[in-house]
Amino acid sequence: MKKLILDVDTGIDDALAIAMVLGMEDVSLAGVTVVFGNTYLSYAVRNTLDVLCELGHPEIGVYPGAEYPWGQNDWLVSDHLKVIHGNNGVGNVSFKYNQRKPKNQSACDFMIEAAKKYKEELIIVNLGPLTNLANAINKNREAMSLCGTIAIMGGALTVKGNITPYAEANIFNDPAAAKYVMESGLDLTMIGLDVTLKTVIMEDDISFLKEITTVASKHIYDMAYYYYVNEEGVLGGAMHDPLAVAAAIDPSLITKWHDISLEVWQNGPGVGRIVTTGDMLVKPNKNVRYALDVNSESFKKRFKEALRKAVNRPE
Amino acid sequence: MKKLILDVDTGIDDALAIAMVLGMEDVSLAGVTVVFGNTYLSYAVRNTLDVLCELGHPEIGVYPGAEYPWGQNDWLVSDHLKVIHGNNGVGNVSFKYNQRKPKNQSACDFMIEAAKKYKEELIIVNLGPLTNLANAINKNREAMSLCGTIAIMGGALTVKGNITPYAEANIFNDPAAAKYVMESGLDLTMIGLDVTLKTVIMEDDISFLKEITTVASKHIYDMAYYYYVNEEGVLGGAMHDPLAVAAAIDPSLITKWHDISLEVWQNGPGVGRIVTTGDMLVKPNKNVRYALDVNSESFKKRFKEALRKAVNRPE
Repeated sequence: MKKLILDVDTGIDDALAIAMVLGMEDVSLAGVTVVFGNTYLSYAVRNTLDVLCELGHPEIGVYPGAEYPWGQNDWLVSDHLKVIHGNNGVGNVSFKYNQRKPKNQSACDFMIEAAKKYKEELIIVNLGPLTNLANAINKNREAMSLCGTIAIMGGALTVKGNITPYAEANIFNDPAAAKYVMESGLDLTMIGLDVTLKTVIMEDDISFLKEITTVASKHIYDMAYYYYVNEEGVLGGAMHDPLAVAAAIDPSLITKWHDISLEVWQNGPGVGRIVTTGDMLVKPNKNVRYALDVNSESFKKRFKEALRKAVNRPE
Repeated sequence: MKKLILDVDTGIDDALAIAMVLGMEDVSLAGVTVVFGNTYLSYAVRNTLDVLCELGHPEIGVYPGAEYPWGQNDWLVSDHLKVIHGNNGVGNVSFKYNQRKPKNQSACDFMIEAAKKYKEELIIVNLGPLTNLANAINKNREAMSLCGTIAIMGGALTVKGNITPYAEANIFNDPAAAKYVMESGLDLTMIGLDVTLKTVIMEDDISFLKEITTVASKHIYDMAYYYYVNEEGVLGGAMHDPLAVAAAIDPSLITKWHDISLEVWQNGPGVGRIVTTGDMLVKPNKNVRYALDVNSESFKKRFKEALRKAVNRPE
């Protein structure tokens, strides 16, 4: 069975991605690494522990990672993010109190250890800024190159950005780390706004959760409701993180992949933009497999089935 | 046999595209419409008449079009363009004197007439700013919708722009006309920098012209040499216009098409950028068939074969 690491900045859609994975039968969650991004690192760690616990999986380790972007020693959550994810990062939902603590091992050390242990069986899906991944590659590139799949929720290639007109938030929030990852030579799978903005949820997609009487179901519903009402998506809440995870596990959900080499802009109005240029265009080896189109209906079906399983458990 | 209209701003690569078409046996050039762009309209008209004449086709009509972008009453050729295309637009090559005059019919009226006459047999390929095409659609959308193919050399979707970091020159040079064309609802084929920067020529690709002793061969060689030395392409001179024409005639040269709806930005640092956004992402009908990858070797083979035929003629 495939082993999965989710690198999260929980975040509502991160929480939904975690729930989805816990309801899937064809993959095993080896651990969850955490990074700043949708909220502060400390909030993201707490939210991740709470979600795992409430969904009945307190055994899954949570590994704290980077608190700030590369080259910075501060991080402020924008008002915009507070609107989308709520002040606490999970739509102001109050999870049940639990005493779980994160692991002492760091996010990047856990990634490296898992890469050595599981090798091609391992899928790492990055749902926040690429800081933890960059740290892991920087520390042990050889080990990280053993991973079967390194997938990234990030980028806006053919589509307008969501944090600036040119950039998607995960890349924008640590462009230096993203550049380092892109230039690492490792094979990357990217699931960006080009497809995640095509997989949006509305009331119809989550109303089934109201029929399930567990606390977990109510909390997942409340978060998802908060998100689709507040997320500035196209026609509802874009399932950025759940789609990235689902596509990393089952690439056939993506109906068009494009092999391309990408750079990450570091300055100017286009900071955080991903694009190809110069001799990257003509060199034969492309480092990124980029998602351009998606079977939204298939994704949503699997997403809903997995959520139903995840929340439908004895309390 | 397919009928072709080239809308040109001749321009070295426009001249090469005209020569290529004259050497092809599976398509007939119905006429050439002209627009400002790589050089002033008057220069572009003169260059087009000269190239057609020197290649033995004085019978092909040349139809002058727009002198300025939509909403403007001036156009200045940049120093950058003078470097790439030479002061006269064709690499400072002096074609033989000829007395041909352009037609009195305007570019847009000729497009409309041809669309009515040839209907689905007609391929229009726009190699300059979209001003003439926009005028034609604006004047008679119904007639223009009869065209079999409307192809555009333009755009930078997954690649850095060539006139700004965000924009390709043909779109940038008349963003209002490009916006109008994109929003017209007509089916468009776009061959942008994403593929044209992958089809570059160097000395090896044009040296065969030196073995052919006609004046036309010398002039085509001189232009192509000037271009690949001065064009700021990746590894030589990018065959923007010849590739667009070849791909419009034979879409199988493009190894990856992407159906997408695109908007054209009108302001700010991203003016002239093409991108998808908002509800364009999820609406089922896409108006653009965009070229993402190309068989460069097949293109170059056909390009060279056609050039050889075009220049190898009795004087």
